[in-house]
Amino acid sequence: MASSNPKTYLIPLTFFLIFSPSLVISSRNLNLKQHKLNNEANNNLTYIWPLPSDYTFGNQTLTVDPNLSLIAAGNGGNSLIVSEAFARYKSIIFKHTSSALKGVEYDVTKLNINVHSADEVLQLGVDESYSLMVAGNDEHSIVGGITIEANSVYGALRGLETFSQLCSFDYGTKSVKLHKAPWYIQDKPRFSYRGLLLDTSRHYLPIEIIKQVIESMSYAKLNVLHWHIIDEESFPLEVPSYPNLWKGSYTKWERYTTDDAYEIVNFAKMRGINVMAEVDVPGHAESWGTGYPDLWPSLSCREPLDVSKNFTFDLISGILADMRKIFPFELFHLGGDEVHTDCWNSTPHVNQWLQDHEMTGKEAYQYFVLKAQEIAISLNWTPVNWEETFNTFASRLNPRTVVHNWLGSGVCPKAVAQGFRCIFSNQGVWYLDHLDVPWDTVYNAEPLEGITDASEQKLVIGGEVCMWGETADASNVQQTIWPRAAAAAERLWSSKESESSGNLTLTVLPRLEYFRCLLTRRGVQAAPVTNFYARSPPTGPGSCYYQ
Amino acid sequence: MASSNPKTYLIPLTFFLIFSPSLVISSRNLNLKQHKLNNEANNNLTYIWPLPSDYTFGNQTLTVDPNLSLIAAGNGGNSLIVSEAFARYKSIIFKHTSSALKGVEYDVTKLNINVHSADEVLQLGVDESYSLMVAGNDEHSIVGGITIEANSVYGALRGLETFSQLCSFDYGTKSVKLHKAPWYIQDKPRFSYRGLLLDTSRHYLPIEIIKQVIESMSYAKLNVLHWHIIDEESFPLEVPSYPNLWKGSYTKWERYTTDDAYEIVNFAKMRGINVMAEVDVPGHAESWGTGYPDLWPSLSCREPLDVSKNFTFDLISGILADMRKIFPFELFHLGGDEVHTDCWNSTPHVNQWLQDHEMTGKEAYQYFVLKAQEIAISLNWTPVNWEETFNTFASRLNPRTVVHNWLGSGVCPKAVAQGFRCIFSNQGVWYLDHLDVPWDTVYNAEPLEGITDASEQKLVIGGEVCMWGETADASNVQQTIWPRAAAAAERLWSSKESESSGNLTLTVLPRLEYFRCLLTRRGVQAAPVTNFYARSPPTGPGSCYYQ
Repeated sequence: MASSNPKTYLIPLTFFLIFSPSLVISSRNLNLKQHKLNNEANNNLTYIWPLPSDYTFGNQTLTVDPNLSLIAAGNGGNSLIVSEAFARYKSIIFKHTSSALKGVEYDVTKLNINVHSADEVLQLGVDESYSLMVAGNDEHSIVGGITIEANSVYGALRGLETFSQLCSFDYGTKSVKLHKAPWYIQDKPRFSYRGLLLDTSRHYLPIEIIKQVIESMSYAKLNVLHWHIIDEESFPLEVPSYPNLWKGSYTKWERYTTDDAYEIVNFAKMRGINVMAEVDVPGHAESWGTGYPDLWPSLSCREPLDVSKNFTFDLISGILADMRKIFPFELFHLGGDEVHTDCWNSTPHVNQWLQDHEMTGKEAYQYFVLKAQEIAISLNWTPVNWEETFNTFASRLNPRTVVHNWLGSGVCPKAVAQGFRCIFSNQGVWYLDHLDVPWDTVYNAEPLEGITDASEQKLVIGGEVCMWGETADASNVQQTIWPRAAAAAERLWSSKESESSGNLTLTVLPRLEYFRCLLTRRGVQAAPVTNFYARSPPTGPGSCYYQ
Repeated sequence: MASSNPKTYLIPLTFFLIFSPSLVISSRNLNLKQHKLNNEANNNLTYIWPLPSDYTFGNQTLTVDPNLSLIAAGNGGNSLIVSEAFARYKSIIFKHTSSALKGVEYDVTKLNINVHSADEVLQLGVDESYSLMVAGNDEHSIVGGITIEANSVYGALRGLETFSQLCSFDYGTKSVKLHKAPWYIQDKPRFSYRGLLLDTSRHYLPIEIIKQVIESMSYAKLNVLHWHIIDEESFPLEVPSYPNLWKGSYTKWERYTTDDAYEIVNFAKMRGINVMAEVDVPGHAESWGTGYPDLWPSLSCREPLDVSKNFTFDLISGILADMRKIFPFELFHLGGDEVHTDCWNSTPHVNQWLQDHEMTGKEAYQYFVLKAQEIAISLNWTPVNWEETFNTFASRLNPRTVVHNWLGSGVCPKAVAQGFRCIFSNQGVWYLDHLDVPWDTVYNAEPLEGITDASEQKLVIGGEVCMWGETADASNVQQTIWPRAAAAAERLWSSKESESSGNLTLTVLPRLEYFRCLLTRRGVQAAPVTNFYARSPPTGPGSCYYQ
């Protein structure tokens, strides 16, 4: 058994000749050959994505029974979340082989899942840790077989994902094998917030597509869907209190009912993923006025929302109260970015209001954001705001505010120094619509950059990759998200001490290519890893594992 | 009730104000406005894709019960193919609403499907015709309700697809509505062969991705998956008789077991889709030699397959015998394209064989193709060959040969004039990897072009769009296929007398955009219709229905 330090791996070479991705490749393609050499120099890589925080493994190969049964235990063992996840992963693991081979005795016939707590509340900081123990086939340990142990059902989900990645179909024997047993994995996330933003305003994304994205997030252990539902272009969400709002949708078919939203939240919860909704005020809200033109300062300038009217805040209260019934996650995003107050100054009745209240445009922006924060807080939400709010009036923000970085580096260090929590989304590295950002730049981004104090580091709750939708719709959102979101996912999950350092082309690239192909095997449209522009097609024929 | 001639539609304008896609659109976008005008000028379009051959409709709106039940009748009514399809379409139709609304009485609670024949053999020319009758809610007809009537289960599948397209979710009432009742549709395909080629050699496509493609084909009523499994780059298929062949796969993970292939054939059959496999000989076969280097004329020139060895033909016999067990479709594609015989002439032992047999390279090519045809025919397959075989030695081809056009126009007219059957795939219009071919060029392509004699027209069994895989892999194959494959699908299904003429921007484009959005709602990554290059992302924010 070897430790997780690569230098101490003592696995026979013959084992790697069987397991290495480089074994069977075409001899014609120079790129493949080059890769083959690279891989053979690095065949002690561990093909789990994201890499667990602590693990050891051996050199045995186990066969896994297609009729694998679940033995659930503990207070949370009987959860539907666990049993449905087990069924999903079974269909993933045994995609090629649904029935047992005749006369074969499998090493692994049972999967033990032990969940200590029956508490299924999913919130920021929920315990996602788990242990995964795979006994060798010659061991007579007390545990035996395979056991996932977790404090919460959500830890069990993460353990199931890791288990599924240990299994691979062997085309030679037509059976699912688990290599490198015995395994002992103890794993937990580095950050509690590991997000992906989806923008359903610039393009409507059908429910089915959103579910595909959520499902794929779970494969990379991402745990927050930041649903940027509404923006200036369209307002697709039903708001029962203000039923004209979704008249701001592109068409009457590009909409989400409250039931749709419930379903998305529940679908995500079953996969251990929180949904953080966003209502971006006062800018980015032009579409609201399609249903309620009073929200526009005037017909000639339609955003930011009219700060001078009580109706504006009544309506925000109504929206948030309705949304509170749908979104149980404690964080709620209030936007607050890119607010250009010229429209207020140039609209006579708003300008008059500013003068009456002795406010500049900037002060009115602050007034608006703080009033929205109060509404959110009164609904027992913790407000999240884009960094402009912090950059403009940090001292006035509610201290519970989570500052969401996007403009560049250096903001989280300032925010946490002032006691705010922070989410890292530096657009130069983690905006997925920036197609010229290569995978390794995404991977190298560091949420704690510039923060050395341990107590300040704790205030960075995590990070988020943002899939803005101007040029991403149902046809290409997945291939724009993947595989680069996975690079961020490992940064957010795995410990900095993992093997994700040194020459990334040797230590990470083969693993990311492997994970990209895993995604495609699961039906996810993940793009080639090393294309010059993200989401571009492969430039020529070749293996998934080397593109 | 109105006939299918657009000029006689007599539907009240108010009805179209409810049903027209242009009702709720943003007022900001000039393109949208333009489209809105176009649509309002053409709101008598029928949003069924492909358009049925004969139909009438009325002006009533029916509500459809989420607990819709299937009443199956006839000899074929109890088929699993029908009941599973009904379940699939129910989940498509009621995606937004799985439970009945309280206190609502639905107009439609039952779907009658009457299948006359219990014969489930799926072959070229299988009866896909169906009638779909939707009674109005004020009618006391003998039939009543909704009835699909078909001779075969496959006709019933086509009827279910049409039925699903009549239904749409009404976001206002939260119920599924069926507009324009009563309907009377009598429908059948114009061509019996409506194919899509998938190339799994240039890039391996995982089973899951192939299933996604097959599922989406059924939405457009395509009925043949031409599986170009093997080519010079890789040999992913397991061949039990020659177990080294799939050593020619890119990696040991980019393979199909015989079970995988069975599963694909069965998955397709459940959707009324035949799978036509291809073994492309003697060119395009370099990858075969990875497992059996004797198939290469020499190490320095590795294709075409060595014509001089008995082993070559023994192996082809073995492959085809193994594949015959998997692929029941009566057509089998033997390739025969792009054969460059220089390698034979320049390899001493092959050149000697040519001299001994007094053959030129061209004659040896003919010898090879005819020998492969004999093997296929001995297995009770009808050979299909790419047009080069016909262009080079038409008079020697087995008369049962189906000639597969690709190089350009004019080949099918020549082939049918000589009594051969023909498949139209003119690369200038129906090669989906030609990204600069716009949707209307695909739509306007005509398989019967240049063929006036009715008996010769009958020999054109249909056409096929080809998705060659050099730059299409799991990440982008669907968006390269759709929506352009749908344009061909309507050409192949709908009668020429349908409304698919005149100004296509008015008569077809809104319908194709609607169908593209239908695909995305069903989770298919269909690209914008009017992009300059196929599969490119949308150029900016906007509605799915106008991009």
